[in-house]
Amino acid sequence: MSGGASSDLLDLVVTGGTLLTMNPVMDILENPVIGVREGRIAFVQSGMADIPEARERIDATGCAVLPGLVNTHTHSPMVCFRGLADDLPLMEWLHRHIWPAEAKYVNRDMVYAGATLAMAEMLLSGTTTFCDSYFYGSSIARAAVDGGMRAVVCQGFIDFPTPDSPEPSRQIEIAEKFVGTWRNRSPLVTPSLFCHTPYTCSTETLKIIKETARRIDVPFQTHLSETRDEVNIIRERFGKSPVDYLEAIGVLDARTVAVHCNWLEEEELDLLAARGVKVSHNPESNLKLAAGMANVPRMLRKGITVGLGTDGCASNNDLDMFGEIGTAAKIHKFVEMDPTVMDAATVLRMATIEGAKVLGLEREIGSVEPGKWADLILIDLEKPHFTPLYNLCSHLVYAARGADVTAAVIGGRIVMKDRRLLTIDLPAAMEEVRRISRRIIADRLK
Amino acid sequence: MSGGASSDLLDLVVTGGTLLTMNPVMDILENPVIGVREGRIAFVQSGMADIPEARERIDATGCAVLPGLVNTHTHSPMVCFRGLADDLPLMEWLHRHIWPAEAKYVNRDMVYAGATLAMAEMLLSGTTTFCDSYFYGSSIARAAVDGGMRAVVCQGFIDFPTPDSPEPSRQIEIAEKFVGTWRNRSPLVTPSLFCHTPYTCSTETLKIIKETARRIDVPFQTHLSETRDEVNIIRERFGKSPVDYLEAIGVLDARTVAVHCNWLEEEELDLLAARGVKVSHNPESNLKLAAGMANVPRMLRKGITVGLGTDGCASNNDLDMFGEIGTAAKIHKFVEMDPTVMDAATVLRMATIEGAKVLGLEREIGSVEPGKWADLILIDLEKPHFTPLYNLCSHLVYAARGADVTAAVIGGRIVMKDRRLLTIDLPAAMEEVRRISRRIIADRLK
Repeated sequence: MSGGASSDLLDLVVTGGTLLTMNPVMDILENPVIGVREGRIAFVQSGMADIPEARERIDATGCAVLPGLVNTHTHSPMVCFRGLADDLPLMEWLHRHIWPAEAKYVNRDMVYAGATLAMAEMLLSGTTTFCDSYFYGSSIARAAVDGGMRAVVCQGFIDFPTPDSPEPSRQIEIAEKFVGTWRNRSPLVTPSLFCHTPYTCSTETLKIIKETARRIDVPFQTHLSETRDEVNIIRERFGKSPVDYLEAIGVLDARTVAVHCNWLEEEELDLLAARGVKVSHNPESNLKLAAGMANVPRMLRKGITVGLGTDGCASNNDLDMFGEIGTAAKIHKFVEMDPTVMDAATVLRMATIEGAKVLGLEREIGSVEPGKWADLILIDLEKPHFTPLYNLCSHLVYAARGADVTAAVIGGRIVMKDRRLLTIDLPAAMEEVRRISRRIIADRLK
Repeated sequence: MSGGASSDLLDLVVTGGTLLTMNPVMDILENPVIGVREGRIAFVQSGMADIPEARERIDATGCAVLPGLVNTHTHSPMVCFRGLADDLPLMEWLHRHIWPAEAKYVNRDMVYAGATLAMAEMLLSGTTTFCDSYFYGSSIARAAVDGGMRAVVCQGFIDFPTPDSPEPSRQIEIAEKFVGTWRNRSPLVTPSLFCHTPYTCSTETLKIIKETARRIDVPFQTHLSETRDEVNIIRERFGKSPVDYLEAIGVLDARTVAVHCNWLEEEELDLLAARGVKVSHNPESNLKLAAGMANVPRMLRKGITVGLGTDGCASNNDLDMFGEIGTAAKIHKFVEMDPTVMDAATVLRMATIEGAKVLGLEREIGSVEPGKWADLILIDLEKPHFTPLYNLCSHLVYAARGADVTAAVIGGRIVMKDRRLLTIDLPAAMEEVRRISRRIIADRLK
């Protein structure tokens, strides 16, 4: 466990409580000391007699300490549309509410304001890394840097196969420019490329963007088989299953993240496993939209890496990863009629280290181990719903909520303590989004 | 809405915020004044110029105010077994963990301690009324009175059909004694009779207990068709579906509450509807145990009254009704592949007024209307996950958590304020249950 305590002054030390390292052997340490230097974990030790000096100290007595949660898929600015339209047929929701609202209200400032409020919500519920694909990716990346939050931020591509799609050369230029701008600009931001779906992007676009992602070495992502209808569209258009289609055009490899994957056949799962494609599972959004449900237990048996995501706030309607954790643990038991699948430890791994693997960040985050970024959260266990305590993993999966998180550290910086945000002006962030919503409400009443 | 403001001094006045009355027309009042006298709602008015004087006042500015949630089914003392055994096959969970633990550790004191901790958790998450069936019902009823919480408390009956079942006359005596003790003893407690299941109670017991419940005018309850296995047992034993069997022995009427109802055929639902039987729906427990899922949208279309319940903490593992609300709203959309079923308002009604109807208390609680008990909760809307706000019902169903509840009033008495319990010593309640758990842990290590 230990990287050895050095005598140099530490930037931060976290002491006490119970540490779920989420390392490969799932070590759980009582009364640990976590030393942090230059944003990274310098050492992890238990039973240390003398606590080394540090510029800052967090006392985790009575708390669970774990790596910050990894939200592998969201569209954070969509908080602006939270609760705008619910309980509607999927196509009506999308075509009559969400897409028109996006066409009218999305701009650079809205994206920055929405991402900032979303980060406030995520930090207050234990997420320290999020993967975001929306319009104006640079606004999201700027919001992440300003808010001190770790993010994989995507440049998105969508081109219903119509004549006015941008020229392929222009797409490459857009992709390269975005990645060039954000690569190495901040240790918090990792750029990525996102094709909306195989039915809203042309074959040419999918191929070009994947080739570009491969060439400049960034993750490629796409929504895949979220609904039964889109599977039918692909089958009609190309005479193949969506996964066979993506295989045929060379899009599947270990740097591809497929989001949702609710309607995959056995052979499609085998192909994803063989190619090392990663999956982002978003159970609450899938339930609320009645989109379908990924067969995650089967994916895991085939060795596919699966992380959790909240999806955007228009289809969830919150960004609390503990909600996804609880739902993921329970929904598959019901679907499989087997209460032993998706046990608590498996689901906690999906929300942390497996999520990091999905995003290609497993050497940087996802567990509390020396050398990784110090991305940590504290959960106050002195609550009635955590009493008594027989099994910490069980409580974190079946009883915990975002509101139980009392502190969050990202890259060694304390970003939330005693449920107060230290890097985001919460009242201002809420007011900014309310201002946007007042315009939406006023337009509706016209 | 108004019962008319009287000039007599009020005991309590709640002012400001947004009131979801949950009355038959779902009135939502901005800036209401709720006057309380002798535990009951004296009047509800909006736009009142002068706030009448009262002994106590709650300022609900920035909050949603709604009737306290009604948890129609739990086994509160099972908090002592929270997280003791998860992710196991149902029969192994029950026979090797839960029943042996109950046989060894359940006693009067454990039941009182567990119920007290459970009430703390429920009050802190917005539940003001719970329906409980467990051993030592009088201990639960005493805990409810001591903690100031409203409860329907059941005397339970179970008698695997073996020779050592108590004599029928003794069962009647037990039932009458329990109801006699608790009827009219406190306005907080309503006694009821609970037969464990049609497969663990003999025909004789079911008939006698239902007849007794009818004669002494209390609700009768039973678990029904929770798992597929128990449906098969009933079919083998009696050659009938469980509902047909209960109909044949005269158990079905409007004062019968059937809990779970996960495996009912169309004709069984029709019969429940015809007899006016009420249903308690416990979706999180049903998912976690992979027990099955009630077809609630179909029940509602047939006019069956359905309330929500958490079930016991060994199969949930919390008592947060907002968890059940969110799960109930989402799971049926997925099962039916229809995102329009179980809309937010319908689910909120199930958690309040419909739950009150299930328990036969709809004239006393479940909505904020003059004459009813003043059972109220406040939810702080000044949170990022409630921002922006287009539709309050949507937020309460899809984004709210128990931790958002900031105050609770039961029968006009403030039992929780600013998330501090006023009627339960929380540290002591937690320590009592920890003491029990330490014995369980020590015995396990032997």
